[in-house]
Amino acid sequence: MTASTTPVRQSSVRAHNLALVLQTVANSADPISRAAVAGATGLTRATVSALVDDLIAGTLLTEVDPAPRSGAGRPAAGLRPAANGPAGLGLEINVDYRAACVVDLTGTVRHHLVETGDQRDGREGLFELAHRARHLAEADGLITAGVALAVPGLVTAGGIVRVAPNLGWQDVTLGTHFDGLPLIVDNEANLAALSEQDTGELPPSFVYVSGEIGIGAGIILDGALYRGVRGWSGEIGHIPVDPAGPLCRCGARGCLEQYAGQEAILRAAGVPTVADLPGADLSAAGTALGTVLATVINLLDVDTIVLGGIYAPLLPALRPAISAEIGRRVLTAGWSPIRLRAATLGPDAAVRGAAGAVLRGILNDPAGWLGRFATR
Amino acid sequence: MTASTTPVRQSSVRAHNLALVLQTVANSADPISRAAVAGATGLTRATVSALVDDLIAGTLLTEVDPAPRSGAGRPAAGLRPAANGPAGLGLEINVDYRAACVVDLTGTVRHHLVETGDQRDGREGLFELAHRARHLAEADGLITAGVALAVPGLVTAGGIVRVAPNLGWQDVTLGTHFDGLPLIVDNEANLAALSEQDTGELPPSFVYVSGEIGIGAGIILDGALYRGVRGWSGEIGHIPVDPAGPLCRCGARGCLEQYAGQEAILRAAGVPTVADLPGADLSAAGTALGTVLATVINLLDVDTIVLGGIYAPLLPALRPAISAEIGRRVLTAGWSPIRLRAATLGPDAAVRGAAGAVLRGILNDPAGWLGRFATR
Repeated sequence: MTASTTPVRQSSVRAHNLALVLQTVANSADPISRAAVAGATGLTRATVSALVDDLIAGTLLTEVDPAPRSGAGRPAAGLRPAANGPAGLGLEINVDYRAACVVDLTGTVRHHLVETGDQRDGREGLFELAHRARHLAEADGLITAGVALAVPGLVTAGGIVRVAPNLGWQDVTLGTHFDGLPLIVDNEANLAALSEQDTGELPPSFVYVSGEIGIGAGIILDGALYRGVRGWSGEIGHIPVDPAGPLCRCGARGCLEQYAGQEAILRAAGVPTVADLPGADLSAAGTALGTVLATVINLLDVDTIVLGGIYAPLLPALRPAISAEIGRRVLTAGWSPIRLRAATLGPDAAVRGAAGAVLRGILNDPAGWLGRFATR
Repeated sequence: MTASTTPVRQSSVRAHNLALVLQTVANSADPISRAAVAGATGLTRATVSALVDDLIAGTLLTEVDPAPRSGAGRPAAGLRPAANGPAGLGLEINVDYRAACVVDLTGTVRHHLVETGDQRDGREGLFELAHRARHLAEADGLITAGVALAVPGLVTAGGIVRVAPNLGWQDVTLGTHFDGLPLIVDNEANLAALSEQDTGELPPSFVYVSGEIGIGAGIILDGALYRGVRGWSGEIGHIPVDPAGPLCRCGARGCLEQYAGQEAILRAAGVPTVADLPGADLSAAGTALGTVLATVINLLDVDTIVLGGIYAPLLPALRPAISAEIGRRVLTAGWSPIRLRAATLGPDAAVRGAAGAVLRGILNDPAGWLGRFATR
């Protein structure tokens, strides 16, 4: 209730305005003039120009020649995010693959490396992959701004993975830096949900479901990622389908993963790899998934579910059973249809989201980046 | 991203400051002086005094004599919410009882009426009960500011109850006014969660579970009620315990209500009334409830569950089975214990919350109340 009586410091005003200008340019579909930035932000033209000059010098913005125009007057140069400035290095480790992804500030994926094979033995391969991706980025003239790692498990502050059951990790400390760069460690479904949100095609609230060997969810409510009290929300892989069902790796019985996880789906379909699944009967997995999604909808009242990971390409085969179960179990299904969508980024959503988390850090705090950049 | 260029109107500044002053007084444990209100709000003493005079004239505040003090100087008079101004009239309808409750602006329950018996036949009895409660309030000199009704079902804008399965209601329009007063209709678990939050003893995020013939949940996240996209969150009574279990009134099989709803508990315990339940073996209901609460915790990552309705007095008998199931199924249970608490207000939480919803409307918009008061 107490009104703030602290004077706003000049440096924090500048930091705020730098972010305002950078985000205004980043959110504009087309190159945007300094005058248009001034109009959109309410800042004076002189202030905008000074800030833009700093952002250009710090490799965050670039000025492009205007398109020729037939009307009177010299057309203004347009601003857009720099394609050759900072890049986010996204990493993902999962049970049977690892991936790295370099994304520049325009959102373009510059490099994307995937290696399949069992990842449960160690993290050396991941580190090597990260080094390779970083070298590729820097050979392009990009500056690797930071690293983010998507993990299929529960992550706490300080880069500690409490538990990633399917990787067999428990209390694994990855720390806050990797290779001299700031490191973010986050749950893979959270990062994937954020990258699906960034496509701009989804409503303000939705639940992203990541189907891999484990199953996780990223919950976006009113435009923001809902992390939970300790950052451990969205563990839908361990919602029971049948409390007396098969034993799960987590120690409980009948968890969703035992019906709709990748291994369970392959076993039920009698095929060896995910590539063989299209065309198989996936109704049992779809029913289990639909039962749990009905629970998610009854609890959270969201009307959009995005299916990612291996579920994205399998949605046509899964949809009938999922929809039947939602129709049967969601109390409100009769009044309001539930939209089931395949993830736009498919299995790449998590690693893309990891790179995006690094870039989001710059968009939210360009002053911090400029400070680091100046001392390079 | 666009900065606001709309000038702030004087009337909205006054409305904001009236609310600020009223809430500062309401949130103070002891009577608070005008000078202390000025200090806490950053407003000038003259502004505070003018606003306080209006709030006193509008029956929202009252000035009490200071406690005698030994130090130098005349002690200041203290402000507190008026006990004889507006009152909230809360109503609740459930399958086997109806209730009304009059609460004044100090939070004191002035009248509380409960009538048991089947409510599925009609709403006449509820209207009569509301009239009786209103007459009792007005005989005390209180001014009934509004009415709020707690319903065990899905409520949409405009006071339409989409469905209340256990009442047999579907698309029942209750409207926006009752007896010439503004009417709020809301889900009973939502209102109960808000009134438990008002006790000030709970963390910023918790889930309130209402055990009656139906079972609902009110979800408080980061201090605010989470309603969902259409206002229909928290339908935990229809989360399946066993998808092949007994048929539920909702049409699906194996819903939680079939294991832990009041009728199921009475049947399993072989006793006729809730009063006979203490001492009975409630382990089957506790296990079902624990399975579903584990789902809620795995999904939302809250660490506090408040059990209300008939569950509040039964918590000692339910706790062992609930805790065992949570320990077995919540992936993070080993790192962070889950607190299970009985609702402080017990079965009265929903009707108290309904009255509180009316009063919250006044606390948030005292200017609106003063306008209504002036034209009475």
